[in-house]
This record gives sequence, C-alpha cells and structure tokens, in this order.
Amino acid sequence: MNTAVNAKQAGAAGNPGPGAPKTARGARTRARILKAAEDTFGTLGYHRAGISDITRAAGVAQGTFYTYFAGKEEILRELVRDMGHQVRAHLAAEIVDARDRLEAEEKGLRAFLQYLFENPSLYRVLQEAQFVDESIYRDYYEAFGKGYLRMLANATRKGEIRAGNNEVRVWALMGMSNFLGLRYALWERDVPFDEIVDTIADLFRNGLTLDGKEKAS
Amino acid sequence: MNTAVNAKQAGAAGNPGPGAPKTARGARTRARILKAAEDTFGTLGYHRAGISDITRAAGVAQGTFYTYFAGKEEILRELVRDMGHQVRAHLAAEIVDARDRLEAEEKGLRAFLQYLFENPSLYRVLQEAQFVDESIYRDYYEAFGKGYLRMLANATRKGEIRAGNNEVRVWALMGMSNFLGLRYALWERDVPFDEIVDTIADLFRNGLTLDGKEKAS
Repeated sequence: MNTAVNAKQAGAAGNPGPGAPKTARGARTRARILKAAEDTFGTLGYHRAGISDITRAAGVAQGTFYTYFAGKEEILRELVRDMGHQVRAHLAAEIVDARDRLEAEEKGLRAFLQYLFENPSLYRVLQEAQFVDESIYRDYYEAFGKGYLRMLANATRKGEIRAGNNEVRVWALMGMSNFLGLRYALWERDVPFDEIVDTIADLFRNGLTLDGKEKAS
Repeated sequence: MNTAVNAKQAGAAGNPGPGAPKTARGARTRARILKAAEDTFGTLGYHRAGISDITRAAGVAQGTFYTYFAGKEEILRELVRDMGHQVRAHLAAEIVDARDRLEAEEKGLRAFLQYLFENPSLYRVLQEAQFVDESIYRDYYEAFGKGYLRMLANATRKGEIRAGNNEVRVWALMGMSNFLGLRYALWERDVPFDEIVDTIADLFRNGLTLDGKEKAS
C-alpha cells in the first residue's frame, strides 16, 4: 500500500491536518504509522488496540506518533480516509481501459473483490469506525459515492446507460459490492469471482426479466 | 413488535434455549425484556449498556432476567434472531399479494425502507453485534438469504425471472437494500421511497442499458 502518495494527495487537496509531514522522510514515517495502525486495529480491534501497540508495530517512539497524530481517534479517521483514497485509486487504475460504463462496472467489481480479499482489515476497520464516530464511516461512503456519481452521470450523458436517478443507483451499487465482498471475498471464497461478475453483468445488461426489456407497460 | 410470537416460533423450530418460557405469561415477560434490550442497546450501545439498564427499562427484577437469559451476550444473540424473525415476517406479509417476483421486489424494498425508518435500532444492534461475535451478524444475513434464495428459485422455475446464479443475486440484493436503507431511511430522508423503488424496479426490468436487453454478444 502506498500511503505516502495518499498523504501527499491529502496535502495537495488543501487538507494537510495539524501533523502533515513536511519532508519525504516524514511522509514515509507517517505512512508507516498508518500501516501499523491498520494492522493493529485489524487484528486487535480498535478498542483493545493501544497507541503503544501501533508504535511498536511501526518501530517508532511514542513521541513520533504524536508528531503526526493527536491520538487514537484521529489516527483512525486518517486511516479510513487513507484507505478510501487507496481503494478508489486502485479501482480507478483497474477500470481505466474499459470501453464503456458497463465494462467499467465489471472490471471494478472484480478488482474490488480481489482487493478486499487481499486487504481484509479494510472492512473490520471501517465497520468498527462506525461506533467510534459514525461520521468516519459515513464520510468514507459519501466520498466513494461522489466519484461514482460523476462516473454514472458521464455515462448517462454519453448514452452508455439509461437515464435514471444515478444517486440512488450509486448507493444500490455500493451496497451490492459491499455485501458480495463480505460474503464471497471475506467469509467464504466458494464462488469464483468471474461467476459473481458475470451474474452482476447480466443484471446490468438485461435486468432480471426473461427477455431483458419489459414490454411497454 | 410481537416478540412473543417469535419466541414461540423459535420454540416450534426445536430451538427453545435454556430459558424458553413455559407459559404465555412467561413469553410476554421474555418479550418485554427483549424489547427493553433492543431499546437499551440501540440507545447506549452494547458495550455501555448493563443488564441493570435492561431490567430497569423492562420493569423486571434482575433475577427475572436470568430466568430467561444467561447474560448480555446471550440476550444480544436472541435479540438479533428475534429481530430477524420480525423483519422477515413483516416483509413476507407485505409482499403476499404481489403478482410476480418483480412486484414482490418492489413491495419488499418499499416495506423494508419504511420498517427501517420506524425501527432504526435494528441496524445499530446488528452492526454492533459483529464486534461481539461475528457469527451473530452472519447468521442474521444467512437466515435472511436462505428464505430469499427459495423465493428467487421459485421465480426462476415459474419463468418470472431469467436463469442465473440466484445465490449471488441474493447477496447483491440484500446489499442493495441495506445501503439504500442506511442512506435514505436512516441518514437522510431526502428522496421519497417511491422514487428509490422506481429506480430499482427499472434496474430489475431493464438493466442499466439504454434499450434494456443487450444485443446478442
């Protein structure tokens, strides 16, 4: 995971935070602490994890932690923001070659399932963040949804998908990926990802009806 | 909420539990304690809630609690099971008049959004249960999914929906409802439920493509 890049992105977005690193070396240290927090929260859970568990995993002194983060809740918030940047950057790279929105949906879903399988702490940290402060969880999905909505609006404009309430669609599609990931990437890998993607691609291309489009009603 | 009926259902299913009530009066008391647990966990959260908060809300003595439940984790498990029975019974009643599966999906989604709006503690309790014991959360969705799968399999057999991997569809559809509920019934009610249902109905009837069915590919 390239947390350093995301620390830079956050800075470029005019959102440096009180402990934003001023040097490349500082950015690397901050990224190492974030990665350690991800592993520690993912393994022990947020409530049981202490800052000393994080600094030990990162191989830094406690004082170094406080150079970058005010405390446990702040690092959780930064971590979720950072994980969100990473998921979105990863998915964006995976769908860059898609010819149209439907192909992008297929590539995006496959990439998401694979990503989640390789980064299971994403869910655990996200879900637990709800109970620390629901806005952390909500911000994650609202940021995700904002980019997604732009893509669907573009696709509508280009005539790649039918007109409709794209915001509602975005929440439906995020929920779909979320549960498919939970069930088939985290709980049990008993259905090949290709079959999952094919099933959803068929839904997007033909709906659930036998002959695809409903007769004029 | 009719928890007494569900206590009976659980008993009929051969799953009485150590503290299953033997009389109608006992069933009512147990149901009152479950309802108090729902409110208490929903308001204070599981970790902050004590058994004395539950017994106070239910208006029963601590000893009465232990007649029916071994402790806090057991009542959480029973509560989630009971909430699951209630959601499913409620949705089943709402879709009983649907002419076909697509109409059932529409009625079911509308009923679910309304239910969640009226019972916001369902999500809070469910989500928090993940961190007490993930199997509580997983059992809830697996039980829900099992009934859903039967309905989709019937619909496929009757030619109401196209053939496909119905299990994958079930998880996609549960995820959809879950996120639509979170966003539009719990966080902000800024889109009428009818518009949400219409958007999803259009997806099920026509997919996302302009002309519905994709040209043979």
